[in-house]
Amino acid sequence: MADYLARVRVTLKPTVNDPQGNTVAQALGTLGFDTVEEVRVGKFIEVKLTASSQAEAEKQITLMGEKLLANPVIELFDFEVEQA
Amino acid sequence: MADYLARVRVTLKPTVNDPQGNTVAQALGTLGFDTVEEVRVGKFIEVKLTASSQAEAEKQITLMGEKLLANPVIELFDFEVEQA
Repeated sequence: MADYLARVRVTLKPTVNDPQGNTVAQALGTLGFDTVEEVRVGKFIEVKLTASSQAEAEKQITLMGEKLLANPVIELFDFEVEQA
Repeated sequence: MADYLARVRVTLKPTVNDPQGNTVAQALGTLGFDTVEEVRVGKFIEVKLTASSQAEAEKQITLMGEKLLANPVIELFDFEVEQA
């Protein structure tokens, strides 16, 4: 068993409205950042886990993404795993 | 002027407690993922902007991170910028 660190990015599907992102974009404009075209806000989740191999760690993280970390109706996720 | 896409990761500083991360870790354990050691939850922010160069886009994103996207007291941020 070895330690792994997974970095998971959870994003809203492109067709889903993102009021939080719109608010951030508006706030940036108010602060003078007038070149901003769009902002989307998602989650960045770091998971430390033990696994017997890189492949096993990736399999576990995929399951976690499907079952808990992302809402499959409105969100997508991807990740990278490295030995920690 | 060209279009750029910045992917910004905002994370809690290592010394800051993360109740949301702890809750996710606990929930993963309840779901049977008993190899999880720690979970930290941050934000993943995608910013589309126009800039005259890659360097200018990176400068703008750095300022946005310092001024709005991250709370410098408790959070860190890093990013990558690519032409979109």
